[in-house]
Amino acid sequence: MSSLHTVLRSATKEVVIGHDQRFCLIGERINPTGRRIFQEQLRAGDLSAIEKDVKAQVEGGADVLDVNMGVPLTDEPALLASAIRLIQSITDLPICIDSSVVEALEAGLSAYEGRALVNSVTAEDDRLAAILPLVKRYDAAIIALPNDADEIPMEADKRLDLTAKIIRVATEEYGIDKADIVIDPLAMPIGADTTTSLVTMETMRRIRAEHGVNMTCGASNTSFGMPDRHTLGAAWLPMAMTAGLTSAIMDTRTPQIVEAVKAADVFLDHDEWGMAWIAAHRAKAAAVS
Amino acid sequence: MSSLHTVLRSATKEVVIGHDQRFCLIGERINPTGRRIFQEQLRAGDLSAIEKDVKAQVEGGADVLDVNMGVPLTDEPALLASAIRLIQSITDLPICIDSSVVEALEAGLSAYEGRALVNSVTAEDDRLAAILPLVKRYDAAIIALPNDADEIPMEADKRLDLTAKIIRVATEEYGIDKADIVIDPLAMPIGADTTTSLVTMETMRRIRAEHGVNMTCGASNTSFGMPDRHTLGAAWLPMAMTAGLTSAIMDTRTPQIVEAVKAADVFLDHDEWGMAWIAAHRAKAAAVS
Repeated sequence: MSSLHTVLRSATKEVVIGHDQRFCLIGERINPTGRRIFQEQLRAGDLSAIEKDVKAQVEGGADVLDVNMGVPLTDEPALLASAIRLIQSITDLPICIDSSVVEALEAGLSAYEGRALVNSVTAEDDRLAAILPLVKRYDAAIIALPNDADEIPMEADKRLDLTAKIIRVATEEYGIDKADIVIDPLAMPIGADTTTSLVTMETMRRIRAEHGVNMTCGASNTSFGMPDRHTLGAAWLPMAMTAGLTSAIMDTRTPQIVEAVKAADVFLDHDEWGMAWIAAHRAKAAAVS
Repeated sequence: MSSLHTVLRSATKEVVIGHDQRFCLIGERINPTGRRIFQEQLRAGDLSAIEKDVKAQVEGGADVLDVNMGVPLTDEPALLASAIRLIQSITDLPICIDSSVVEALEAGLSAYEGRALVNSVTAEDDRLAAILPLVKRYDAAIIALPNDADEIPMEADKRLDLTAKIIRVATEEYGIDKADIVIDPLAMPIGADTTTSLVTMETMRRIRAEHGVNMTCGASNTSFGMPDRHTLGAAWLPMAMTAGLTSAIMDTRTPQIVEAVKAADVFLDHDEWGMAWIAAHRAKAAAVS
C-alpha cells in the first residue's frame, strides 16, 4: 500500500501525517463551542484565554492545533485571523484552521505563516467549489468529510463513493495533490448505535486500501453519552489506528488516551525500538521521584 | 465472513468463543511457571494456593481458566487431574487444560466434566498425531500454534501455511470440527522487534478472512521487557480484536487491560446497547460510594 505524506508547517516546524508515521494528534480545545465564558471573552476582544488552552494542548502532546473561533454575533473572519496571529506567536506547532464559514477560512489562511490544514469541506458541490480553490491558492491541505447535503451516510459504500468523488474533484478539477487530502471517515457516538463503529472501521480499511490517503476524525465523538469516556477513547483510537486512521482531532489533556495512542504507535512499528515509549516512561518516572 | 462458534462447557456452564461474541478472557495465572513457592507447595501435594489464584482470576472477569501444572520432578498427569478436580469443585467456569505432556493432557481430559479447551498442539506431525486423537475422543476443542519443529515463523505467509495444514489434518484426518480449532497467531514481545506485532496482525486478518476460525494467544507476551506493560496491553488487545482475535490467555487481575477489552467489545458491537459497559460502570460507582 502506498504511504502518502501530508506535510504541514508552521514558520519553523514541520509535521508529517502518514501511514508510516507516528499518529498525529490535533489538539481540539481551542474552540469556544459550548463554552459560554470563553465566548463572552472572545466577543469582548479578549483573547487571553486562548493562551491557556494552547499551553494545555501542547503540554498534553499535541502535534498540530485545531483553531475554531465560531462565536455567534462576531466578525468570525477577523477573530480567526487574530487568534491565528496570536497562536503563531506563542507556539511553533502547525495549525488546523477550523470553520464552516468560507470567509473565515480565507482570513485564517491569509494570516497564517506556513502550510495549514483546513477543516473542512464536504462532498457537496457548492462547498467543494467554494473551498478547494482556497486550499490550492494557499498551498494548504484539506480535511474532507464524505457526506452530502445535511445527511451523514450510515453505509460504508456511500462513504466510499463520496470519498472517491472528493478525491477526483480535488485532484482533477483543482490540481490538489492527493497527499494533501485528509479524509474524515465519520466517527459517530457508539451510545446511539452500537453498530456505528463497525461502519467507521470498514470505511477506514477500505479508504486505506483503495486510496491510501491519510485520515483524521473527531475522536471524542465516539464515546459521547457513555460512562467512563476516557477508557472508551483509549480503546477506540488503537482500534482505529489498526484500521488505518493516521490522525485525530482530540483533547490531548487526557493522558490515558494520549498514552494509548503512543502504545499503539509502538505496535504499528512507528516508534523504532520503542525508544519514544521508553524515553517517555523514564521522563515520567523522573518527574515522580 | 462466517462466524464459527467454539463451545466450551463445565458441568453447568457454557462459554461460546466467536467473532460475533464478547471477547473470551482465559485466566492464565493457575500456572506454577516461574513461581518457586507455588511449585514447592504443589510438589508437596498442597493444592491450597490454587484456590486463591482461581478466585482472583474469576473476580477479575475470566470466562475460562487455563490450568497448567508443569512442575519439574512431579507426576504431572496425576497433579493436573487433581488440580482439575479441585477447580471444578470451586468454580463453574470451563477449563483450558494446558500441558506439553500428552499423558498429562489425557489425564486432565479424563478428570474433566465438560467440554474442555486443550492447550496446545503445534503443526509438527508427531504432535498432531499424538494430541488430535485425544481431542476427538474427549470431544474437546484445541488451541493450535502454527509453528513447526522448534522454530517460530517470522513471516505471515509461513504462519498461514501451517494454519492451513493444521486445519486440513484436524478436519480431514481426525474428523475434528473446524469450529473446535482455535489458532494462536503467535504474539511475540514488541521489545525485541518492533515489526513483530504487524506480522501477528496480518496473520490474524488473513486467518479471519481465509478460515473464519477463532483465535487466541498469550497476550502478556507482547509487552514483555517494556516499561508500563499494562498500558501496552490495554492498547494491544483492542488492536488485536480489530484484526480478528476472539480470545486471549491473560492475567485478568489487571483492571486496565480487562476494561480495555470490554470497551473494544462495545465498539465491535458485541455489547448490545452498551448495556454490559453501563452496568459495569454503575456497579463500580456503587462500590465506591
